Amino acid sequence: MVDILHKVGVKAPADKVYEALTTRNGLAGWWTRDTRGEGNVAGATIGFHFSRGGVEIGDIAMKVIELAPGKQVLWQVVGGPAEWIGTRVAFALEQNGEYCSVLFKHQGWKEPVEFMHHCSTKWATFLMSLKSFIETGKGAPSPDDVKIDDWN
Amino acid sequence: MVDILHKVGVKAPADKVYEALTTRNGLAGWWTRDTRGEGNVAGATIGFHFSRGGVEIGDIAMKVIELAPGKQVLWQVVGGPAEWIGTRVAFALEQNGEYCSVLFKHQGWKEPVEFMHHCSTKWATFLMSLKSFIETGKGAPSPDDVKIDDWN
Repeated sequence: MVDILHKVGVKAPADKVYEALTTRNGLAGWWTRDTRGEGNVAGATIGFHFSRGGVEIGDIAMKVIELAPGKQVLWQVVGGPAEWIGTRVAFALEQNGEYCSVLFKHQGWKEPVEFMHHCSTKWATFLMSLKSFIETGKGAPSPDDVKIDDWN
Repeated sequence: MVDILHKVGVKAPADKVYEALTTRNGLAGWWTRDTRGEGNVAGATIGFHFSRGGVEIGDIAMKVIELAPGKQVLWQVVGGPAEWIGTRVAFALEQNGEYCSVLFKHQGWKEPVEFMHHCSTKWATFLMSLKSFIETGKGAPSPDDVKIDDWN
């Protein structure tokens, strides 16, 4: 089992970051504009849809496993690419002065395949989008996401 | 042992990417402007110096372990943060049409500490800097690097 790890520091209270991770409007502000459902109740499923030129190119379903307001969000992947099924995505928040540290893990990949390399870099750009969305009001969610390679 | 993995696709011939990974001017264009030494000979050591406001805040020494022109660059960390000593940094290049895929690994971390999360996101921003440097002539090397948290 191998994990993708990241950290960003967001200049904001942890509650603001938690909101951007658990509400439809928040998630649509940094990951994908086509987010369906809310993530503020354990057991709920959130749908994330990705498109290019108006054509859907993929979708991911996350089940909310654990929530601790201002501290922790944990999802399990229940729909999406084969390599993602059963993996977990965790955000741990910690306030350090003006900054909220976001420790991110996408855990439980079976193999460090090329697609995992791609997803690691892509998560970094989305976490920078989360930071920017909260700090400036403007993120870079799909379909306006940062392109990292020819797979985008 | 845990690894940081990334992938970017650079719209350029692999030789151009290889040049940016093995020459002082190339490395200074995307990682840190204060790069000392060349990386085009196995056994050589390259010094990477990082500063803020004119004050040096850290430096890293990489020994070049393996080189395959247009294909592979492998470094061993011989100076730098304690967590980095003995780890290896690998760039594997592969031409796919117009794009050169860069598969990146920073291998051999002992523990997935918070600093590893930070370095993973930071590597992603530097690899995006590499892509931009080659495609547009303008990267974001230190001290003009993308700030990801309060540790920058």
